[in-house]
Amino acid sequence: MTAESEQAAFVRAVLEGRGRQPAGMATASAPANLALCKYWGKRDATLNLPVTGSLSVSLGPLGTTTRVAVAARDRLLLEGRRLPARSPFAQRLWRFLDLFRPPGVCFHVETTNSVATAAGIASSASGFAALTAALDKLFDWHLEGRDLSLLARLGSGSACRSVYHGFVEWLAGSRDDGRDSYAVALRQRWPALRVGVLTITDAPKPLASRDAMARTVASSALYRAWPEQAAEDLQVLKQAIAEHNFVTLGRTAESNALAMHATMVSAWPPVLYWQPGTLEAMRRVWALRQAGMALYLSMDAGPNVKLLFLAGDEQAVSEAFPTVRMVAPFDDEAGVDC
Amino acid sequence: MTAESEQAAFVRAVLEGRGRQPAGMATASAPANLALCKYWGKRDATLNLPVTGSLSVSLGPLGTTTRVAVAARDRLLLEGRRLPARSPFAQRLWRFLDLFRPPGVCFHVETTNSVATAAGIASSASGFAALTAALDKLFDWHLEGRDLSLLARLGSGSACRSVYHGFVEWLAGSRDDGRDSYAVALRQRWPALRVGVLTITDAPKPLASRDAMARTVASSALYRAWPEQAAEDLQVLKQAIAEHNFVTLGRTAESNALAMHATMVSAWPPVLYWQPGTLEAMRRVWALRQAGMALYLSMDAGPNVKLLFLAGDEQAVSEAFPTVRMVAPFDDEAGVDC
Repeated sequence: MTAESEQAAFVRAVLEGRGRQPAGMATASAPANLALCKYWGKRDATLNLPVTGSLSVSLGPLGTTTRVAVAARDRLLLEGRRLPARSPFAQRLWRFLDLFRPPGVCFHVETTNSVATAAGIASSASGFAALTAALDKLFDWHLEGRDLSLLARLGSGSACRSVYHGFVEWLAGSRDDGRDSYAVALRQRWPALRVGVLTITDAPKPLASRDAMARTVASSALYRAWPEQAAEDLQVLKQAIAEHNFVTLGRTAESNALAMHATMVSAWPPVLYWQPGTLEAMRRVWALRQAGMALYLSMDAGPNVKLLFLAGDEQAVSEAFPTVRMVAPFDDEAGVDC
Repeated sequence: MTAESEQAAFVRAVLEGRGRQPAGMATASAPANLALCKYWGKRDATLNLPVTGSLSVSLGPLGTTTRVAVAARDRLLLEGRRLPARSPFAQRLWRFLDLFRPPGVCFHVETTNSVATAAGIASSASGFAALTAALDKLFDWHLEGRDLSLLARLGSGSACRSVYHGFVEWLAGSRDDGRDSYAVALRQRWPALRVGVLTITDAPKPLASRDAMARTVASSALYRAWPEQAAEDLQVLKQAIAEHNFVTLGRTAESNALAMHATMVSAWPPVLYWQPGTLEAMRRVWALRQAGMALYLSMDAGPNVKLLFLAGDEQAVSEAFPTVRMVAPFDDEAGVDC
């Protein structure tokens, strides 16, 4: 079975009994998410099945809004500009849309991000989550979060978590058919939690996350120890969230992110996303922590740095990092607009 | 048994039947060494017994020269300047000398390095190897390399490799008493091999290697995968040396060094020695390799970068790295001057 036919079979199974004919147009939004325990390593690259579970917090107002309409011919606008069909982003998006496309139907897609594309703010996660939610409306499926999550996962693994706001766990699942690998929203809220986004550079990454991940799994000897660490971190984080234990949450999230980067550094050829500005931000976080502030960092597969802190330290963080973009993840929990 | 008495018992066993009374003065030199497979993790911190074997190449003219004399009172000169007895370096050196000191004897010690102290060019390795060789003369022991290596190891683990020139393997050993954990010189030579030393900074390190090592072993989940990688790398490196396969040597040494740094990054609190200049040098190496040059990097527990290449690329490396210090490890194989 080809990758396309395996994915198509998965989609048919999830959509069993639902409409296959799109009509009109639909718009949906989805939040970016910051993984506190990272998705790092696939057990199945066709269905985006992860080696371990992961856990994220959705980033409220940061994310993607996507409009999809039935059209006379395929067209993709990113940030209002037409994207050539050959661009990697466009190819990935059309491969995803082809899974749902009835014969003879074309799509007009307009997508806008509130954060830089491919600069490590998980824009593919919010992008595929928003697109899936828009398709749900366009086809009139009325899917539950679980099924939206299963479909979004095919576009980008971490997109399955961007289907919800708040804390989200992606259950790794164990089935070969991928039907038990989806995200669930945790019921716990943490209104005082803050995420700061430091954009070190918004230039496109030299290597896509998925390629860095594949290379790391294939070549890093240290990666052998990753699944065990991720499993431990996931449990510790869930407990920290349940108890609102911020020091444990921050420490575990930072350690998990740095361990992910460590596995990349030990891959071959080595993968190093850090820029001088990344090192500077890391050292500033560590100096502030040394001075007593409860401030922790995280990073995705890119050079940018995310900060974790509580509402009481907002002003101190702003002063130390004047360019930080603050997010209060629990200020707006509308869920995916669908 | 205290650490001191355990070390003293080890010294007595190694020196059984040798003279215990020093006389006059003696001078000896020892080379710095670059580990191609790192010593990273102790199974016994008192006797400096390693978790795995390691493999280095000695750096010819870079190293330490030490003069020891029986004197009226203890005095330590580093680079010609008197060092206060309370300084960490002095305390470490006197603790080592106390293992050999007969009652009532004092030492005058003068030590000079051809490379910056504590800036990650393994100066403690050459330092304790040179001191051990000088003591061998001062006490008229006439020890073989193996026994010099056993004694130097007590001062600093990697010092046991600086007892020889050329390629050196430190056999991990398995005995609790540490008598089978010593270095041996490999018989293979590789005259075309070159090492370039890039000093990014000669400021003292924020955290001593031994502390970084202890913290990593204690807290990094990824370290669990290190012993297996090191064991594999060691075998691959020995084969590459036997076959003069430079690409395999370079790749394995670079990957081993980066994996060591990766375990530090994933320790808690994280240990990060890299400076912006470190990142810049790494990226320059990778760009030159991408362009076809057989150029690889290594690093010790510090910000400085070492280059590995062959004689034919000397000029190209000099042009790309104008400040590089070139070493031809097989130009001078006098062995420890003893």
